[in-house]
Amino acid sequence: MSSSSAAPAAKPPMRDALVAAAFQLFLEGGYEQTTVDDIVALAGVGRRSFFRYFPSKEDVVFPDHERCLADMTAFLAASAEEDEPVRRVCDAARLVLRMYAENPTFSVQRYRLTKQVPGLRAYELSVVWRYERALAGYLRGRFADRAGGTLRADVVAAAVVAAHNNALRSWLRSDGEDDAGAAVDHALGYVQAAFGHEAPGHPGDPDHPRGEGAEDVVVLVARRDAPLWRVVREFETVLGRG
Amino acid sequence: MSSSSAAPAAKPPMRDALVAAAFQLFLEGGYEQTTVDDIVALAGVGRRSFFRYFPSKEDVVFPDHERCLADMTAFLAASAEEDEPVRRVCDAARLVLRMYAENPTFSVQRYRLTKQVPGLRAYELSVVWRYERALAGYLRGRFADRAGGTLRADVVAAAVVAAHNNALRSWLRSDGEDDAGAAVDHALGYVQAAFGHEAPGHPGDPDHPRGEGAEDVVVLVARRDAPLWRVVREFETVLGRG
Repeated sequence: MSSSSAAPAAKPPMRDALVAAAFQLFLEGGYEQTTVDDIVALAGVGRRSFFRYFPSKEDVVFPDHERCLADMTAFLAASAEEDEPVRRVCDAARLVLRMYAENPTFSVQRYRLTKQVPGLRAYELSVVWRYERALAGYLRGRFADRAGGTLRADVVAAAVVAAHNNALRSWLRSDGEDDAGAAVDHALGYVQAAFGHEAPGHPGDPDHPRGEGAEDVVVLVARRDAPLWRVVREFETVLGRG
Repeated sequence: MSSSSAAPAAKPPMRDALVAAAFQLFLEGGYEQTTVDDIVALAGVGRRSFFRYFPSKEDVVFPDHERCLADMTAFLAASAEEDEPVRRVCDAARLVLRMYAENPTFSVQRYRLTKQVPGLRAYELSVVWRYERALAGYLRGRFADRAGGTLRADVVAAAVVAAHNNALRSWLRSDGEDDAGAAVDHALGYVQAAFGHEAPGHPGDPDHPRGEGAEDVVVLVARRDAPLWRVVREFETVLGRG
Protein backbone atom coordinates (compact mmCIF):
# COMPACT_ATOMS: atom_id res chain seq x y z
CA MET A 1 0.00 0.00 0.00
CA SER A 2 2.70 2.46 0.94
CA SER A 3 4.53 1.92 -2.32
CA SER A 4 1.72 3.24 -4.51
CA SER A 5 2.10 6.69 -5.96
CA ALA A 6 0.12 9.91 -6.29
CA ALA A 7 1.46 10.46 -9.81
CA PRO A 8 -1.33 10.88 -12.35
CA ALA A 9 -2.05 8.02 -14.71
CA ALA A 10 -1.06 8.43 -18.36
CA LYS A 11 -4.35 10.00 -19.42
CA PRO A 12 -6.10 11.19 -16.28
CA PRO A 13 -9.54 12.70 -16.57
CA MET A 14 -9.61 16.46 -16.29
CA ARG A 15 -10.58 16.43 -12.62
CA ASP A 16 -7.59 14.24 -11.71
CA ALA A 17 -5.33 16.40 -13.85
CA LEU A 18 -6.43 19.49 -11.93
CA VAL A 19 -5.74 17.80 -8.58
CA ALA A 20 -2.32 16.64 -9.76
CA ALA A 21 -1.41 20.09 -11.10
CA ALA A 22 -2.63 21.79 -7.94
CA PHE A 23 -0.57 19.55 -5.67
CA GLN A 24 2.53 19.91 -7.79
CA LEU A 25 2.26 23.70 -7.45
CA PHE A 26 1.30 23.65 -3.76
CA LEU A 27 4.35 21.53 -2.94
CA GLU A 28 6.72 23.54 -5.12
CA GLY A 29 5.55 27.06 -4.41
CA GLY A 30 3.29 26.92 -1.37
CA TYR A 31 -0.48 26.78 -1.05
CA GLU A 32 -1.11 30.47 -0.45
CA GLN A 33 1.18 31.53 -3.30
CA THR A 34 -0.54 29.29 -5.86
CA THR A 35 -3.53 30.75 -7.69
CA VAL A 36 -6.32 28.99 -9.54
CA ASP A 37 -4.87 30.58 -12.69
CA ASP A 38 -1.54 28.84 -12.03
CA ILE A 39 -3.34 25.50 -11.62
CA VAL A 40 -5.41 25.73 -14.79
CA ALA A 41 -2.37 26.89 -16.77
CA LEU A 42 -0.38 23.82 -15.71
CA ALA A 43 -3.33 21.48 -16.29
CA GLY A 44 -3.96 23.08 -19.66
CA VAL A 45 -7.63 23.83 -19.08
CA GLY A 46 -9.73 26.96 -18.57
CA ARG A 47 -10.84 28.54 -15.28
CA ARG A 48 -14.42 27.46 -15.86
CA SER A 49 -13.32 23.82 -15.98
CA PHE A 50 -11.71 24.24 -12.56
CA PHE A 51 -14.81 25.72 -10.99
CA ARG A 52 -17.01 23.07 -12.59
CA TYR A 53 -15.26 20.54 -10.35
CA PHE A 54 -14.21 22.60 -7.34
CA PRO A 55 -16.11 25.49 -5.74
CA SER A 56 -12.84 26.95 -4.38
CA LYS A 57 -9.10 26.39 -4.18
CA GLU A 58 -9.59 24.71 -0.80
CA ASP A 59 -11.84 22.06 -2.33
CA VAL A 60 -9.11 20.81 -4.68
CA VAL A 61 -7.06 19.88 -1.60
CA PHE A 62 -9.82 17.49 -0.45
CA PRO A 63 -11.16 16.18 -3.75
CA ASP A 64 -12.65 12.93 -2.42
CA HIS A 65 -14.49 13.94 0.74
CA GLU A 66 -17.80 14.69 -0.98
CA ARG A 67 -17.82 11.26 -2.58
CA CYS A 68 -16.82 9.66 0.71
CA LEU A 69 -19.56 11.54 2.60
CA ALA A 70 -22.06 10.34 0.01
CA ASP A 71 -20.77 6.77 0.34
CA MET A 72 -21.04 6.97 4.13
CA THR A 73 -24.58 8.33 3.98
CA ALA A 74 -25.61 5.57 1.56
CA PHE A 75 -23.91 2.92 3.71
CA LEU A 76 -25.75 4.07 6.83
CA ALA A 77 -29.06 4.37 4.97
CA ALA A 78 -28.66 0.76 3.86
CA SER A 79 -28.35 -0.48 7.46
CA ALA A 80 -30.62 -3.24 8.71
CA GLU A 81 -32.50 -3.28 11.99
CA GLU A 82 -30.32 -6.13 13.24
CA ASP A 83 -27.06 -4.22 12.72
CA GLU A 84 -25.55 -3.33 16.06
CA PRO A 85 -25.53 0.50 15.83
CA VAL A 86 -22.08 1.20 17.29
CA ARG A 87 -20.48 -1.45 15.12
CA ARG A 88 -22.26 0.01 12.11
CA VAL A 89 -20.89 3.53 12.63
CA CYS A 90 -17.42 2.07 13.17
CA ASP A 91 -17.71 0.35 9.80
CA ALA A 92 -18.92 3.62 8.27
CA ALA A 93 -15.83 5.39 9.66
CA ARG A 94 -13.64 2.78 7.98
CA LEU A 95 -14.81 4.16 4.61
CA VAL A 96 -12.91 7.35 5.40
CA LEU A 97 -9.76 5.47 6.29
CA ARG A 98 -10.03 3.49 3.07
CA MET A 99 -10.16 6.72 1.06
CA TYR A 100 -6.92 7.91 2.68
CA ALA A 101 -5.23 4.52 2.40
CA GLU A 102 -6.07 4.21 -1.30
CA ASN A 103 -3.44 6.80 -2.05
CA PRO A 104 -0.85 7.05 0.74
CA THR A 105 1.54 9.43 -0.99
CA PHE A 106 -1.19 11.94 -1.75
CA SER A 107 -2.65 11.60 1.75
CA VAL A 108 0.71 12.20 3.43
CA GLN A 109 1.44 15.23 1.22
CA ARG A 110 -1.94 16.70 2.06
CA TYR A 111 -1.46 16.03 5.77
CA ARG A 112 1.74 18.09 5.75
CA LEU A 113 0.11 20.84 3.72
CA THR A 114 -2.93 21.00 6.00
CA LYS A 115 -0.76 21.34 9.10
CA GLN A 116 0.87 24.44 7.59
CA VAL A 117 -2.18 26.32 6.29
CA PRO A 118 -4.76 27.50 8.86
CA GLY A 119 -7.46 27.87 6.21
CA LEU A 120 -7.08 24.22 5.28
CA ARG A 121 -7.25 23.20 8.94
CA ALA A 122 -10.56 25.06 9.19
CA TYR A 123 -11.81 23.36 6.03
CA GLU A 124 -10.84 19.97 7.41
CA LEU A 125 -12.64 20.66 10.69
CA SER A 126 -15.83 21.38 8.75
CA VAL A 127 -15.45 18.12 6.82
CA VAL A 128 -14.86 16.15 10.02
CA TRP A 129 -17.92 17.81 11.49
CA ARG A 130 -20.03 16.63 8.55
CA TYR A 131 -18.83 13.03 8.98
CA GLU A 132 -19.60 13.23 12.68
CA ARG A 133 -23.11 14.56 12.02
CA ALA A 134 -23.75 11.77 9.50
CA LEU A 135 -22.81 9.17 12.13
CA ALA A 136 -24.76 10.96 14.87
CA GLY A 137 -27.83 11.28 12.64
CA TYR A 138 -27.91 7.54 12.04
CA LEU A 139 -27.40 6.79 15.74
CA ARG A 140 -30.11 9.26 16.76
CA GLY A 141 -32.52 7.33 14.60
CA ARG A 142 -31.46 4.02 16.13
CA PHE A 143 -31.61 5.37 19.69
CA ALA A 144 -34.79 7.41 19.15
CA ASP A 145 -36.96 5.26 21.38
CA ARG A 146 -34.84 5.58 24.48
CA ALA A 147 -34.37 8.37 26.98
CA GLY A 148 -31.01 10.05 26.50
CA GLY A 149 -30.83 8.79 22.93
CA THR A 150 -29.53 11.98 21.36
CA LEU A 151 -26.88 12.33 24.07
CA ARG A 152 -25.74 8.76 23.52
CA ALA A 153 -25.76 9.26 19.74
CA ASP A 154 -23.70 12.45 19.87
CA VAL A 155 -21.14 11.07 22.31
CA VAL A 156 -20.66 7.79 20.43
CA ALA A 157 -20.32 9.60 17.09
CA ALA A 158 -17.69 11.94 18.55
CA ALA A 159 -15.82 9.04 20.13
CA VAL A 160 -15.79 7.11 16.85
CA VAL A 161 -14.49 10.12 14.93
CA ALA A 162 -11.81 10.83 17.54
CA ALA A 163 -10.64 7.21 17.57
CA HIS A 164 -10.58 7.07 13.77
CA ASN A 165 -8.64 10.30 13.54
CA ASN A 166 -6.17 9.23 16.21
CA ALA A 167 -5.36 6.14 14.13
CA LEU A 168 -5.38 8.06 10.86
CA ARG A 169 -2.94 10.67 12.16
CA SER A 170 -0.60 8.00 13.52
CA TRP A 171 -0.57 6.41 10.10
CA LEU A 172 0.00 9.75 8.34
CA ARG A 173 2.86 10.55 10.72
CA SER A 174 4.40 7.20 9.77
CA ASP A 175 4.41 8.50 6.16
CA GLY A 176 1.86 5.84 5.31
CA GLU A 177 4.29 3.07 6.28
CA ASP A 178 2.33 1.58 9.20
CA ASP A 179 -0.64 -0.72 8.82
CA ALA A 180 -3.55 1.74 8.69
CA GLY A 181 -6.19 -0.97 8.95
CA ALA A 182 -4.73 -2.50 12.09
CA ALA A 183 -4.40 0.90 13.77
CA VAL A 184 -7.99 1.87 13.07
CA ASP A 185 -9.30 -1.56 14.10
CA HIS A 186 -7.56 -1.15 17.45
CA ALA A 187 -8.88 2.39 17.91
CA LEU A 188 -12.45 1.56 16.95
CA GLY A 189 -12.32 -1.60 19.04
CA TYR A 190 -11.73 0.62 22.04
CA VAL A 191 -14.87 2.64 21.32
CA GLN A 192 -16.91 -0.51 20.70
CA ALA A 193 -15.73 -1.92 24.02
CA ALA A 194 -16.83 1.23 25.82
CA PHE A 195 -20.18 1.75 24.08
CA GLY A 196 -21.02 -1.16 21.84
CA HIS A 197 -23.25 -3.21 24.12
CA GLU A 198 -26.95 -2.67 24.19
CA ALA A 199 -27.68 -4.36 27.48
CA PRO A 200 -29.23 -2.14 30.12
CA GLY A 201 -26.91 -1.71 33.05
CA HIS A 202 -23.94 -1.24 30.77
CA PRO A 203 -22.02 1.93 31.59
CA GLY A 204 -22.53 3.08 28.01
CA ASP A 205 -26.21 3.44 28.69
CA PRO A 206 -26.91 6.93 30.08
CA ASP A 207 -30.05 5.78 31.85
CA HIS A 208 -28.39 2.87 33.58
CA PRO A 209 -24.94 4.02 34.60
CA ARG A 210 -22.41 1.63 36.07
CA GLY A 211 -23.20 0.28 39.47
CA GLU A 212 -26.93 0.84 39.36
CA GLY A 213 -29.24 -2.15 39.27
CA ALA A 214 -30.49 -3.08 35.83
CA GLU A 215 -33.31 -5.10 34.46
CA ASP A 216 -31.81 -8.33 33.20
CA VAL A 217 -28.04 -8.06 33.51
CA VAL A 218 -25.66 -7.78 36.42
CA VAL A 219 -22.12 -6.54 36.19
CA LEU A 220 -19.77 -7.98 38.76
CA VAL A 221 -16.29 -6.60 39.33
CA ALA A 222 -14.03 -8.89 41.34
CA ARG A 223 -10.37 -9.02 42.21
CA ARG A 224 -8.55 -11.66 40.21
CA ASP A 225 -7.30 -13.27 43.40
CA ALA A 226 -10.68 -13.19 45.14
CA PRO A 227 -11.74 -16.50 46.62
CA LEU A 228 -14.61 -18.11 44.77
CA TRP A 229 -16.95 -18.09 47.78
CA ARG A 230 -16.66 -14.30 47.96
CA VAL A 231 -17.61 -13.91 44.30
CA VAL A 232 -20.60 -16.21 44.74
CA ARG A 233 -21.75 -14.32 47.82
CA GLU A 234 -21.46 -11.00 46.03
CA PHE A 235 -23.41 -12.30 43.07
CA GLU A 236 -26.16 -13.54 45.36
CA THR A 237 -26.23 -10.25 47.22
CA VAL A 238 -26.58 -8.26 44.01
CA LEU A 239 -29.45 -10.49 42.96
CA GLY A 240 -31.09 -10.41 46.35
CA ARG A 241 -30.94 -14.20 46.34
CA GLY A 242 -28.58 -14.54 49.27
CA MET B 1 -30.59 32.94 35.29
CA SER B 2 -32.91 33.16 32.31
CA SER B 3 -34.24 36.55 33.40
CA SER B 4 -30.91 38.37 33.13
CA SER B 5 -30.36 40.54 30.09
CA ALA B 6 -27.76 41.12 27.37
CA ALA B 7 -28.34 44.88 27.48
CA PRO B 8 -25.15 46.80 28.17
CA ALA B 9 -24.66 48.30 31.60
CA ALA B 10 -25.00 52.06 31.97
CA LYS B 11 -21.31 52.77 31.35
CA PRO B 12 -19.82 49.68 29.70
CA PRO B 13 -16.14 49.60 28.92
CA MET B 14 -15.30 50.12 25.26
CA ARG B 15 -14.97 46.41 24.52
CA ASP B 16 -18.44 45.70 25.87
CA ALA B 17 -19.82 48.67 23.97
CA LEU B 18 -18.42 47.26 20.72
CA VAL B 19 -20.00 43.86 21.39
CA ALA B 20 -23.35 45.44 22.22
CA ALA B 21 -23.28 47.65 19.11
CA ALA B 22 -22.27 44.73 16.91
CA PHE B 23 -25.09 42.50 18.14
CA GLN B 24 -27.65 45.26 17.82
CA LEU B 25 -26.66 45.68 14.17
CA PHE B 26 -26.36 41.94 13.46
CA LEU B 27 -29.87 41.35 14.78
CA GLU B 28 -31.39 44.34 13.02
CA GLY B 29 -29.65 44.15 9.64
CA GLY B 30 -27.98 40.75 9.43
CA TYR B 31 -24.43 39.66 10.10
CA GLU B 32 -23.14 39.74 6.52
CA GLN B 33 -24.66 43.15 5.84
CA THR B 34 -23.06 44.77 8.89
CA THR B 35 -19.56 46.20 8.45
CA VAL B 36 -16.94 47.01 11.06
CA ASP B 37 -17.48 50.66 10.08
CA ASP B 38 -21.15 50.36 11.02
CA ILE B 39 -20.19 48.87 14.38
CA VAL B 40 -17.64 51.51 15.32
CA ALA B 41 -19.99 54.29 14.19
CA LEU B 42 -22.74 53.04 16.51
CA ALA B 43 -20.30 52.49 19.38
CA GLY B 44 -18.80 55.93 18.81
CA VAL B 45 -15.18 54.75 18.54
CA GLY B 46 -12.58 54.49 15.79
CA ARG B 47 -11.74 51.45 13.65
CA ARG B 48 -8.41 51.02 15.43
CA SER B 49 -10.22 50.61 18.73
CA PHE B 50 -12.24 47.79 17.23
CA PHE B 51 -9.19 45.95 15.94
CA ARG B 52 -7.38 46.45 19.23
CA TYR B 53 -9.95 44.13 20.81
CA PHE B 54 -11.03 41.93 17.90
CA PRO B 55 -8.86 40.63 15.05
CA SER B 56 -11.92 40.31 12.80
CA LYS B 57 -15.68 40.78 12.65
CA GLU B 58 -16.12 37.10 13.51
CA ASP B 59 -14.26 37.53 16.79
CA VAL B 60 -16.76 40.07 18.12
CA VAL B 61 -19.43 37.36 17.91
CA PHE B 62 -17.46 35.19 20.35
CA PRO B 63 -15.90 37.78 22.64
CA ASP B 64 -15.36 35.52 25.67
CA HIS B 65 -13.89 32.33 24.23
CA GLU B 66 -10.26 33.46 24.48
CA ARG B 67 -10.70 34.24 28.16
CA CYS B 68 -12.52 30.96 28.70
CA LEU B 69 -9.80 29.00 26.90
CA ALA B 70 -7.20 30.69 29.09
CA ASP B 71 -9.26 29.88 32.20
CA MET B 72 -9.56 26.25 31.11
CA THR B 73 -5.84 25.95 30.43
CA ALA B 74 -5.03 27.46 33.84
CA PHE B 75 -7.57 25.20 35.56
CA LEU B 76 -6.05 22.09 33.99
CA ALA B 77 -2.50 23.24 34.70
CA ALA B 78 -3.46 23.61 38.37
CA SER B 79 -4.58 19.97 38.60
CA ALA B 80 -3.18 17.72 41.29
CA GLU B 81 -1.90 14.20 40.81
CA GLU B 82 -4.78 12.83 42.88
CA ASP B 83 -7.44 14.42 40.66
CA GLU B 84 -9.26 11.71 38.73
CA PRO B 85 -8.46 12.76 35.13
CA VAL B 86 -11.89 12.23 33.53
CA ARG B 87 -13.64 14.07 36.33
CA ARG B 88 -11.11 16.88 35.97
CA VAL B 89 -11.79 17.43 32.26
CA CYS B 90 -15.53 17.31 32.95
CA ASP B 91 -15.06 20.09 35.49
CA ALA B 92 -12.97 22.01 32.94
CA ALA B 93 -15.81 21.70 30.40
CA ARG B 94 -18.20 23.21 32.95
CA LEU B 95 -16.24 26.47 32.66
CA VAL B 96 -17.53 26.80 29.09
CA LEU B 97 -21.11 26.19 30.16
CA ARG B 98 -20.75 28.78 32.88
CA MET B 99 -19.61 31.36 30.33
CA TYR B 100 -22.76 30.74 28.26
CA ALA B 101 -25.05 30.65 31.29
CA GLU B 102 -23.69 33.93 32.64
CA ASN B 103 -25.58 35.75 29.92
CA PRO B 104 -28.47 33.67 28.58
CA THR B 105 -30.01 36.32 26.33
CA PHE B 106 -26.74 37.02 24.58
CA SER B 107 -25.95 33.30 24.27
CA VAL B 108 -29.35 32.51 22.73
CA GLN B 109 -29.06 35.41 20.27
CA ARG B 110 -25.63 34.23 19.22
CA TYR B 111 -26.82 30.65 18.85
CA ARG B 112 -29.49 31.76 16.37
CA LEU B 113 -27.03 33.95 14.50
CA THR B 114 -24.42 31.20 14.28
CA LYS B 115 -26.96 28.74 12.85
CA GLN B 116 -27.64 31.18 9.99
CA VAL B 117 -24.10 32.19 9.02
CA PRO B 118 -21.78 29.46 7.65
CA GLY B 119 -18.67 31.51 8.40
CA LEU B 120 -19.63 31.71 12.07
CA ARG B 121 -20.29 27.96 12.17
CA ALA B 122 -16.74 27.42 10.86
CA TYR B 123 -15.37 29.82 13.47
CA GLU B 124 -17.25 27.99 16.21
CA LEU B 125 -15.90 24.63 15.05
CA SER B 126 -12.36 25.97 15.34
CA VAL B 127 -13.08 27.20 18.87
CA VAL B 128 -14.59 23.87 19.87
CA TRP B 129 -11.51 22.17 18.42
CA ARG B 130 -9.25 24.28 20.62
CA TYR B 131 -11.23 23.37 23.76
CA GLU B 132 -11.04 19.71 22.77
CA ARG B 133 -7.28 19.90 22.24
CA ALA B 134 -6.82 21.58 25.63
CA LEU B 135 -8.69 18.72 27.32
CA ALA B 136 -6.89 16.08 25.24
CA GLY B 137 -3.50 17.64 25.99
CA TYR B 138 -4.10 17.40 29.73
CA LEU B 139 -5.33 13.81 29.44
CA ARG B 140 -2.39 12.80 27.26
CA GLY B 141 -0.12 13.96 30.05
CA ARG B 142 -2.04 12.02 32.66
CA PHE B 143 -2.19 8.88 30.50
CA ALA B 144 1.38 9.19 29.20
CA ASP B 145 2.67 6.14 31.03
CA ARG B 146 0.19 3.67 29.63
CA ALA B 147 -0.08 1.99 26.23
CA GLY B 148 -2.92 3.50 24.22
CA GLY B 149 -2.76 6.68 26.30
CA THR B 150 -3.13 9.13 23.42
CA LEU B 151 -6.05 7.17 21.99
CA ARG B 152 -7.79 7.15 25.34
CA ALA B 153 -7.07 10.86 25.81
CA ASP B 154 -8.41 11.84 22.39
CA VAL B 155 -11.56 9.74 22.70
CA VAL B 156 -12.39 10.93 26.22
CA ALA B 157 -11.81 14.58 25.26
CA ALA B 158 -14.10 14.23 22.23
CA ALA B 159 -16.76 12.49 24.31
CA VAL B 160 -16.66 15.21 26.97
CA VAL B 161 -16.97 17.96 24.36
CA ALA B 162 -19.84 16.16 22.59
CA ALA B 163 -21.71 15.61 25.85
CA HIS B 164 -21.19 19.21 26.92
CA ASN B 165 -22.37 20.52 23.57
CA ASN B 166 -25.40 18.25 23.54
CA ALA B 167 -26.48 19.74 26.88
CA LEU B 168 -25.53 23.28 25.85
CA ARG B 169 -27.56 23.11 22.63
CA SER B 170 -30.59 21.71 24.48
CA TRP B 171 -30.38 24.64 26.83
CA LEU B 172 -29.95 27.15 23.98
CA ARG B 173 -32.94 25.65 22.15
CA SER B 174 -34.98 26.17 25.34
CA ASP B 175 -34.12 29.89 24.99
CA GLY B 176 -32.08 29.60 28.16
CA GLU B 177 -35.15 28.59 30.17
CA ASP B 178 -34.04 25.07 31.19
CA ASP B 179 -31.59 24.32 33.96
CA ALA B 180 -28.25 24.37 32.13
CA GLY B 181 -26.31 23.01 35.09
CA ALA B 182 -28.54 19.98 35.53
CA ALA B 183 -28.42 19.17 31.81
CA VAL B 184 -24.64 19.31 31.65
CA ASP B 185 -24.28 17.33 34.87
CA HIS B 186 -26.40 14.57 33.37
CA ALA B 187 -24.47 14.60 30.09
CA LEU B 188 -21.03 14.62 31.71
CA GLY B 189 -22.16 11.97 34.18
CA TYR B 190 -22.76 9.71 31.22
CA VAL B 191 -19.18 10.18 29.99
CA GLN B 192 -17.77 9.67 33.48
CA ALA B 193 -19.73 6.44 33.81
CA ALA B 194 -18.29 5.18 30.53
CA PHE B 195 -14.69 6.26 31.01
CA GLY B 196 -14.12 7.58 34.50
CA HIS B 197 -12.78 4.49 36.21
CA GLU B 198 -9.13 3.75 36.31
CA ALA B 199 -9.28 0.05 37.10
CA PRO B 200 -7.62 -2.16 34.49
CA GLY B 201 -10.16 -4.46 32.96
CA HIS B 202 -12.67 -1.65 32.73
CA PRO B 203 -14.02 -1.33 29.19
CA GLY B 204 -12.80 2.24 29.14
CA ASP B 205 -9.24 0.98 29.12
CA PRO B 206 -8.10 0.43 25.51
CA ASP B 207 -5.55 -2.16 26.53
CA HIS B 208 -7.97 -4.17 28.58
CA PRO B 209 -11.24 -4.17 26.70
CA ARG B 210 -14.36 -5.73 28.15
CA GLY B 211 -14.25 -9.45 28.64
CA GLU B 212 -10.50 -9.81 28.39
CA GLY B 213 -8.55 -10.80 31.43
CA ALA B 214 -6.80 -7.97 33.25
CA GLU B 215 -4.09 -7.71 35.84
CA ASP B 216 -5.97 -7.61 39.12
CA VAL B 217 -9.61 -7.25 38.28
CA VAL B 218 -12.11 -9.25 36.31
CA VAL B 219 -15.40 -7.92 35.03
CA LEU B 220 -18.15 -10.46 34.71
CA VAL B 221 -21.41 -9.70 32.93
CA ALA B 222 -24.17 -12.19 33.68
CA ARG B 223 -27.87 -12.41 33.04
CA ARG B 224 -29.84 -11.73 36.17
CA ASP B 225 -31.64 -15.05 35.80
CA ALA B 226 -28.46 -17.04 35.13
CA PRO B 227 -28.04 -20.14 37.28
CA LEU B 228 -25.30 -19.78 39.86
CA TRP B 229 -23.27 -22.70 38.49
CA ARG B 230 -22.98 -20.93 35.14
CA VAL B 231 -21.65 -17.76 36.76
CA VAL B 232 -19.12 -19.75 38.77
CA ARG B 233 -17.98 -21.63 35.68
CA GLU B 234 -17.56 -18.40 33.71
CA PHE B 235 -15.60 -16.82 36.55
CA GLU B 236 -13.30 -19.83 36.69
CA THR B 237 -12.87 -19.79 32.91
CA VAL B 238 -11.91 -16.12 32.88
CA LEU B 239 -9.35 -16.77 35.60
CA GLY B 240 -8.00 -19.89 33.92
CA ARG B 241 -8.76 -21.73 37.16
CA GLY B 242 -11.39 -24.05 35.74
